[in-house]
Amino acid sequence: MTVELISVGTELLLGNIVNTNANYLAIQCAGLGFSMYHQVTVGDNKDRLYEAIDTARHRADIIILTGGLGPTSDDITKETLASLLNKELIMDEYSKDRIMSYFKNKITENNWKQALKIKDSLVIDNDNGTAPGYIVEDKNNVFVLLPGPPREMIPMFEDKMLPYLQKLQDKVFLSRMVKTCGIGEAKAETMIIDLINNQTNPTIAPYAKNGEVHFRVTASANSSKEAEQLLEPVISQLQARFANNIYSLIEEETLEEVVVRLLSDHNLTLSCAESCTGGLVAGRIINVAGVSDIFTEGFITYSNQAKMKYLNVKESTLKAYGAVSEQVAKEMAIGAAKASSSNVSVAITGIAGPGGGTEEKPVGLVYISCFIDGDVFVNKYNFRGNREKVREQSVIAAIDLIRRCIVEIYG
Amino acid sequence: MTVELISVGTELLLGNIVNTNANYLAIQCAGLGFSMYHQVTVGDNKDRLYEAIDTARHRADIIILTGGLGPTSDDITKETLASLLNKELIMDEYSKDRIMSYFKNKITENNWKQALKIKDSLVIDNDNGTAPGYIVEDKNNVFVLLPGPPREMIPMFEDKMLPYLQKLQDKVFLSRMVKTCGIGEAKAETMIIDLINNQTNPTIAPYAKNGEVHFRVTASANSSKEAEQLLEPVISQLQARFANNIYSLIEEETLEEVVVRLLSDHNLTLSCAESCTGGLVAGRIINVAGVSDIFTEGFITYSNQAKMKYLNVKESTLKAYGAVSEQVAKEMAIGAAKASSSNVSVAITGIAGPGGGTEEKPVGLVYISCFIDGDVFVNKYNFRGNREKVREQSVIAAIDLIRRCIVEIYG
Repeated sequence: MTVELISVGTELLLGNIVNTNANYLAIQCAGLGFSMYHQVTVGDNKDRLYEAIDTARHRADIIILTGGLGPTSDDITKETLASLLNKELIMDEYSKDRIMSYFKNKITENNWKQALKIKDSLVIDNDNGTAPGYIVEDKNNVFVLLPGPPREMIPMFEDKMLPYLQKLQDKVFLSRMVKTCGIGEAKAETMIIDLINNQTNPTIAPYAKNGEVHFRVTASANSSKEAEQLLEPVISQLQARFANNIYSLIEEETLEEVVVRLLSDHNLTLSCAESCTGGLVAGRIINVAGVSDIFTEGFITYSNQAKMKYLNVKESTLKAYGAVSEQVAKEMAIGAAKASSSNVSVAITGIAGPGGGTEEKPVGLVYISCFIDGDVFVNKYNFRGNREKVREQSVIAAIDLIRRCIVEIYG
Repeated sequence: MTVELISVGTELLLGNIVNTNANYLAIQCAGLGFSMYHQVTVGDNKDRLYEAIDTARHRADIIILTGGLGPTSDDITKETLASLLNKELIMDEYSKDRIMSYFKNKITENNWKQALKIKDSLVIDNDNGTAPGYIVEDKNNVFVLLPGPPREMIPMFEDKMLPYLQKLQDKVFLSRMVKTCGIGEAKAETMIIDLINNQTNPTIAPYAKNGEVHFRVTASANSSKEAEQLLEPVISQLQARFANNIYSLIEEETLEEVVVRLLSDHNLTLSCAESCTGGLVAGRIINVAGVSDIFTEGFITYSNQAKMKYLNVKESTLKAYGAVSEQVAKEMAIGAAKASSSNVSVAITGIAGPGGGTEEKPVGLVYISCFIDGDVFVNKYNFRGNREKVREQSVIAAIDLIRRCIVEIYG
């Protein structure tokens, strides 16, 4: 089975956005055992899109199109494919109802465009936006139409398109995820380079994502059971190599979900005291649904004043060691736990830059402290990159430190 | 002038790396005023690469190829182009010397491959690796060959290729950005559909990004001055139509930067009181460098207890109206401003879901309140989507509300 990817959107040709969809879908298709020989990007232009689809359908079995499903006049993917296949566009009552209930009284004329479907196509719900996806089966090809925004495209692909595509493949492809945090991509790869170099079946594909490194292990076999048996020993080897750096073997489980689960399992409550991360750690923790049982309050103490007022950090400590120091991180964590009566707390203080760095305390220096049941752990980090990058890495390190501390103490 | 981009590398088709080169080169070409209509990715396969270049040369003036210039046998870009153009590959003495001095005694046989050039081509030095770049001028086309690794490609492009390409362009291209917040993509487009439909020069390209809608207005002319004169009236029209929904005309300025600038300009200080957004509003504000003058502290009051303890929200208000109510949002904002002695504060309370919704107060109901110099504004929102989406929209709406309140009061 061959697959060709067509990304539609003038914004890609102008460089307004990076085409991460192409990367995501390439990984997914490789995992499905499809051969991808071409990726093509065209703008919101009917003639060029027509030509691209026409070329693709003669050289690939499956054509995946992303983008161009929006409500505006330059969204033309559905219309162009319909005209190429000589199929009608018809009003889909189901989509119409969904759009009506979504927009209530705020429907503008062009919203109705999204209720049109190519005749005989399957309409695929979009749970994160208004543009549905479509599967169009033609004599020699299958066309998969996905919305452009990754946060609409990815869930739709994973929940709805993947099961469909899996059925087109006669081999069983099974993949498992090993999700690590706390080691860089290059180092992680070096730690298992022998396994990667000798891989045949299962394959091991590493990829770095938001400061984490994930490994997708994929086996192909004649049955699920056989595939499982092939996966088992490789997963065990990765577990042995990466040990505590692995936070989950469940593909959809995020680091913050693991932390919330661990806290909840051990009847622990959490508070946060953040300086340079300014609320982002709590912000990510609170993205987990049902977090109210374990999280009640957090402190954004950007100024020294606030650190003293809310967290009881001593003025003498600030004077002696500076706000970005092991000692202050420690007092912040203790203070947050006390003020909020939580069993666990995490505190972050650092120099995110671009200003504020010195030779002794350069930009990127961050102290993260975790208080847990009376014990306090502090880690020192030297992160690279700009302000945003330093803060992002601090957030991940802080959430990961909570995880490591709970695992350390509660096993 | 049209340009087509061909990215060469099986690793792109397998999803091992994200094609950031395509994005970088798209931006560069847009800046040069070249029209890019196609981006194509093919693997390290001679036939498919040959076909891709052959197609490209018939529909574009300039063809930029990245990747496939390395020393190994699957690096075939130069070889394939030479065979397509019926040109010889000859040993380039200059490259040979460079390779000898680079590798000293460690030259392996395949390193010599990198000293070969297509006859009559220009060899472009690679200051960050061993693979030189090339410019090949043919009757109807210019071929630009660049190495694949971004840290070799980008400096080579900027230092050596850009000056060459600039000379090919006689027109001046100038673009300006109009960045709006608070109106959806479909509605924003409807508001200026007549302008979009009648556009020729300048062109108006809308695109939605993280809850904002941006319009890129681009003019081409014989001089910068003339391009400016073409842009001026269109920008004015967009300003008249979108009014206060426009937060910036500066491409790289973010919404939070505008808010920090406005606060700073008017000597105002800010605090945040967040329930469902859990720190994300402060987190985004604090991403602006030098924010410490205007932001000192923030409160993450996820529980009712915390709302009372830190923000002095009355128990009676919580009982009478519930935590997600106009009244509580108001008291949170007032309380945050008081506790932190700030002139401005923003408070967010809402139901992010998936649980917690009722018929009367459904998931997505969010109240955002802004306190400013004694006045308090409250907005009610009904956001759509999952927990993450509701929170994200709340964050943007909160930051935008601060902006609108300052503009409203301070003009």
